[in-house]
Amino acid sequence: MSCSPRTAMAEYNTNLRLKLPITCIVMEVIVIILFAVFVRYDTDTDARKWHKEKSHDNKSNYENDFYFRYPSFQDVHVMIFIGFGFLMTFLQRYGFSSVGFNFLIAAFSLQWATLMQGFFHGMHNGKIEIGVESMINADFCTGAVLISFGAVLGKTSPVQLLIMAVIEVTLFAINEFLVLSVLNAKDAGGSMTIHIFGAYFGLGVTRVLYRPNLDKSQHKNCSVYHSDLFAMIGTIYLWMFWPSFNSAITAEGDDQHRTAMNTYYSLAACTLATFAISAVVNHEGKLDMVHIQNAALAGGVAMGTAGEMMLTPVGSMVVGFLAGIISTLGFKYLTPILEEKFHVQDTCGVHNLHGMPGVLGATVGTITASLASAEVYGEGMKDVFPDIYEGKTTPFKQAMWQGLSMGVTMGIASIGGILTGLLLKVPIYATPPDTMCFEDNIYWEVCLCHRLFFFFNVHIIPE
Amino acid sequence: MSCSPRTAMAEYNTNLRLKLPITCIVMEVIVIILFAVFVRYDTDTDARKWHKEKSHDNKSNYENDFYFRYPSFQDVHVMIFIGFGFLMTFLQRYGFSSVGFNFLIAAFSLQWATLMQGFFHGMHNGKIEIGVESMINADFCTGAVLISFGAVLGKTSPVQLLIMAVIEVTLFAINEFLVLSVLNAKDAGGSMTIHIFGAYFGLGVTRVLYRPNLDKSQHKNCSVYHSDLFAMIGTIYLWMFWPSFNSAITAEGDDQHRTAMNTYYSLAACTLATFAISAVVNHEGKLDMVHIQNAALAGGVAMGTAGEMMLTPVGSMVVGFLAGIISTLGFKYLTPILEEKFHVQDTCGVHNLHGMPGVLGATVGTITASLASAEVYGEGMKDVFPDIYEGKTTPFKQAMWQGLSMGVTMGIASIGGILTGLLLKVPIYATPPDTMCFEDNIYWEVCLCHRLFFFFNVHIIPE
Amino acid sequence: MSCSPRTAMAEYNTNLRLKLPITCIVMEVIVIILFAVFVRYDTDTDARKWHKEKSHDNKSNYENDFYFRYPSFQDVHVMIFIGFGFLMTFLQRYGFSSVGFNFLIAAFSLQWATLMQGFFHGMHNGKIEIGVESMINADFCTGAVLISFGAVLGKTSPVQLLIMAVIEVTLFAINEFLVLSVLNAKDAGGSMTIHIFGAYFGLGVTRVLYRPNLDKSQHKNCSVYHSDLFAMIGTIYLWMFWPSFNSAITAEGDDQHRTAMNTYYSLAACTLATFAISAVVNHEGKLDMVHIQNAALAGGVAMGTAGEMMLTPVGSMVVGFLAGIISTLGFKYLTPILEEKFHVQDTCGVHNLHGMPGVLGATVGTITASLASAEVYGEGMKDVFPDIYEGKTTPFKQAMWQGLSMGVTMGIASIGGILTGLLLKVPIYATPPDTMCFEDNIYWEVCLCHRLFFFFNVHIIPE
Repeated sequence: MSCSPRTAMAEYNTNLRLKLPITCIVMEVIVIILFAVFVRYDTDTDARKWHKEKSHDNKSNYENDFYFRYPSFQDVHVMIFIGFGFLMTFLQRYGFSSVGFNFLIAAFSLQWATLMQGFFHGMHNGKIEIGVESMINADFCTGAVLISFGAVLGKTSPVQLLIMAVIEVTLFAINEFLVLSVLNAKDAGGSMTIHIFGAYFGLGVTRVLYRPNLDKSQHKNCSVYHSDLFAMIGTIYLWMFWPSFNSAITAEGDDQHRTAMNTYYSLAACTLATFAISAVVNHEGKLDMVHIQNAALAGGVAMGTAGEMMLTPVGSMVVGFLAGIISTLGFKYLTPILEEKFHVQDTCGVHNLHGMPGVLGATVGTITASLASAEVYGEGMKDVFPDIYEGKTTPFKQAMWQGLSMGVTMGIASIGGILTGLLLKVPIYATPPDTMCFEDNIYWEVCLCHRLFFFFNVHIIPE
Repeated sequence: MSCSPRTAMAEYNTNLRLKLPITCIVMEVIVIILFAVFVRYDTDTDARKWHKEKSHDNKSNYENDFYFRYPSFQDVHVMIFIGFGFLMTFLQRYGFSSVGFNFLIAAFSLQWATLMQGFFHGMHNGKIEIGVESMINADFCTGAVLISFGAVLGKTSPVQLLIMAVIEVTLFAINEFLVLSVLNAKDAGGSMTIHIFGAYFGLGVTRVLYRPNLDKSQHKNCSVYHSDLFAMIGTIYLWMFWPSFNSAITAEGDDQHRTAMNTYYSLAACTLATFAISAVVNHEGKLDMVHIQNAALAGGVAMGTAGEMMLTPVGSMVVGFLAGIISTLGFKYLTPILEEKFHVQDTCGVHNLHGMPGVLGATVGTITASLASAEVYGEGMKDVFPDIYEGKTTPFKQAMWQGLSMGVTMGIASIGGILTGLLLKVPIYATPPDTMCFEDNIYWEVCLCHRLFFFFNVHIIPE
Repeated sequence: MSCSPRTAMAEYNTNLRLKLPITCIVMEVIVIILFAVFVRYDTDTDARKWHKEKSHDNKSNYENDFYFRYPSFQDVHVMIFIGFGFLMTFLQRYGFSSVGFNFLIAAFSLQWATLMQGFFHGMHNGKIEIGVESMINADFCTGAVLISFGAVLGKTSPVQLLIMAVIEVTLFAINEFLVLSVLNAKDAGGSMTIHIFGAYFGLGVTRVLYRPNLDKSQHKNCSVYHSDLFAMIGTIYLWMFWPSFNSAITAEGDDQHRTAMNTYYSLAACTLATFAISAVVNHEGKLDMVHIQNAALAGGVAMGTAGEMMLTPVGSMVVGFLAGIISTLGFKYLTPILEEKFHVQDTCGVHNLHGMPGVLGATVGTITASLASAEVYGEGMKDVFPDIYEGKTTPFKQAMWQGLSMGVTMGIASIGGILTGLLLKVPIYATPPDTMCFEDNIYWEVCLCHRLFFFFNVHIIPE
């Protein structure tokens, strides 16, 4: 079911035959060598060590971290591969690339993240020890890369995306180390480290890769009926499992429980706000699938920092409600301005879904931290704010570090994104020409029946 | 990608621009105020209280209710948002509304259910205390609303659906209180409180909203190839996670385990029955996707009451097998009679999937309760039938209460549905005209490419 | 929305009206009778027994096996029904059959597997005692049947598939007994018992059912754009939950934890290899969806035996990387040879995804077992290699049994498949004619709108 070659592609040298295999194999071999040298099982995954600890500390198998975190890990895993992957299938001719490249760069990023997060804040006696918690953290880091992918979707080759992933994961790990270990900020669900970082990094890249003539393929940057339903699969999975995402690495017990519940109510309120604003900003009062697919998720982003804190259920709802309003307004009014005035072409609108709600989440985290008190937290302060519990800091100082962390994250992400964009401009990565953006056909075998479908579109729709 | 307005819509005033935002925002603000006043973290989600209880009772973190119930909660959550949402995408031009309005009313209902279930049977010292178990119960109540949504699918505006949700959730909580707390019936998986209630409420509403000229849009009340595959996503998720649904709030230990397993075998037997009957009732011996999508699930509905009892694996299979037969026959023979003779237009056939199998489930629960004996249950009687264990009642009396509960539920649901239908007839809710039922275009921005698809259908298929 | 009968079908007697119902009902009634006689709740699902054991052994509810294994069970369940079901929807006109027959034969197989696995290696006092572990094992056995289904997809009637399931499940249980209980091999994730068995059984069947004129319907044996996206849903779910599959029945504690993590890294490395090889073998350097949908999963298959062993993370990656290379090369070069030279028409390429990676997995298991040492495993040897721990065998001997198990499995599967194929050739099962293979219309009511879609294809695409 082979397609004849298109001359356009040959001119732009988008042939992946050598570039992609070489990139994949070189990177995988490097990963394998580094794993061989540095990576070991941790106590909970090592046969000898776990049995020794069990008999030494009189532990039971159900105290293995697997039973506390593996269900959450699997929910996060679904968000990364199904959630992000299908959320991006809304483009009419770019479904294979959306879900396929999402798959490729996520599979690479989680390996690279294991190494980078290990190097920067997980070394024990010169080795990186891994288990379910490091797997969740690797998936989290991958999430940031996929957010950035959303900003450049349709305009980059898989080789560019892999190069971007190498750099972004590395900077993510450095920033995470600064925020969590140097500034001692709290950010279990990653409003800052994942969402702000991923969004502003991606915006930096897409700004540098600005294509003034992108409107040549603009008619393809459009959804069709079924592509929007595929995208809703992504949306709903992200929405449902966000409580697991935010609670996946919080402390065991009440912390995981509370974080999940706060996120659940935040998302519910956010959804009502999204439907309300989507109808009100449309001159016919019609709902827009783009808003429902994206802005309804902002309530999860905005709970990434404060979710584990004693924000109260009603506090979570108010945050979610605001996030939904801000995000929907962003899609309607800010995205066109960003493109026209600032030359930022943000394909999936990650600034609206991850950028602004991330800033809201970081701000809520700052405020909530400043209000922490022993009456409210009791002995639970030890889990949520250990430094306050131990008297090393005050709620006000903790809030200062939270706020500073937001600024640091935005700075590292933006500058890192711009520098990465410059690197990706070098014309050696099989980048698509303007006329072939948002087009699976350039990188995938697409069968005859599919071409028929293209044929109809191209000739019947006035461009 | 904006579509030009259609005059038909303007005449019927289906513009949502003010009506939907006002409804959403007013309702969300009321919810937020009531949460602020009444809702608090329970012991397992509150930092101070959990740590106090832990040190007082020498508990460990793994005894937090989160670890017993959160995986089940997430499975239920998937059923509510993916399962119900995609099950209804079978209509060819109503996929956005099916999954989108499912999303909207579920997000609202779970908030409102937290309040109503709290008010009627969850107050502690004037406050509603919430955790994972209340989240599951809120999702359960949402399930009943979505069942009713299935009955009126395609014929109602989102404003009507939200009004319906407000009333239905309230009556659900009242009925649940009567059945579980006054009559002391057992119904952990909700054969009565969820399925019978949701189905007969929905049938009541759709009876009052009867449209004699609905055949004007009848050609749209049809599936297409890919819409049926989307619907199968919903079906399979409901089918797979029904064991988690029925066991989500049963007692910990053997009860959750047994309920899940009984449901697993009931569904398996039901599927065989559904395929058998689907082929035999078709004059060409062909299978009908509608049966497979729906009737194969009846085995889960029918285990909602007796699932936690010592029904035995083979008993579960027999119940599932019967449920599959009844449900498939209902889709084939009863649905047309309901529409023609009784003017009940049941879009998704909820009477066949939830109504009759719910009655079967309640009946099986009644019989199984009457057979409860100390030899079979041992000390486990305490979990399943605490009143029998404590000598407060006998198996025969318990069975009487079970049977009475079914009647009470049917009565409250039917009358509530009819009254709600009358309220929804008031022409202020942006209701679609007969010609625009089953049509996304009326409430959603649908892009040009989609209209092209319509164009072909409209002109080529003889209507 | 009924379709007029096609004469072609009448001639070949593909009418299911009596054949399918009779098969389903007879088989279900036999299952029900056998369940009534032989199947009972086990200690963890029986009210009396669990409560007795709890008070006797001073156990807590969280020690019920449900909490250790039910989340893994649900992940496996998703793989069986969504994963396998949607993976096979890639055929353009066979989506209903792919997901529908997958549903039917899986629902039957899990019941039959409960009985057969019970008879051959699970009897206690003349009864089969069941709980979550037997449910996982039943789903595993179902997986093997679905692999074989992939080999014959599009060319068999549902009656044939059910007959095949009866025989295959029985032989599966016998082989499993030989491998795990007689030869005492380890194979927790089923590289041998599930993947090699399912693949070679299916290849045996499809060899005997060889259709020299299958090219008459060859133009239907093709994917379309959206069918490939549906298939990616199956792929991604299989990929994400494979760590749960391999770890579902390993020992509690470090074993489950380690197995899941090894599989996670194996799959990640496999994905990079798949993308690399897919691009390099295409003369335009384009990626092929068939490779991504299938070969990226080979890393899970290849970890089915050694996943629980102390293979190290880097060892897992190397295995996954090799599996991806072998599998992709198989799809490109071996599948055409198998069809042309050996008359093996392997619709889904199960030889590439399950056959060869299964052999790789069994080989890796053999090597890893031969290297087992007390220094590496410590007291954990008791869980992974109890016979070595107890001194009953040596690592070298264990490796011999592992290797022998692979051979036994290949032999039983191949011969069993060939004999089953001979039985299925008897022309009484409503088998489709060559011209109607890969065609839903023959067994399903397909609505007018769908026929319209066919109309376009048939007349516009040159065949």
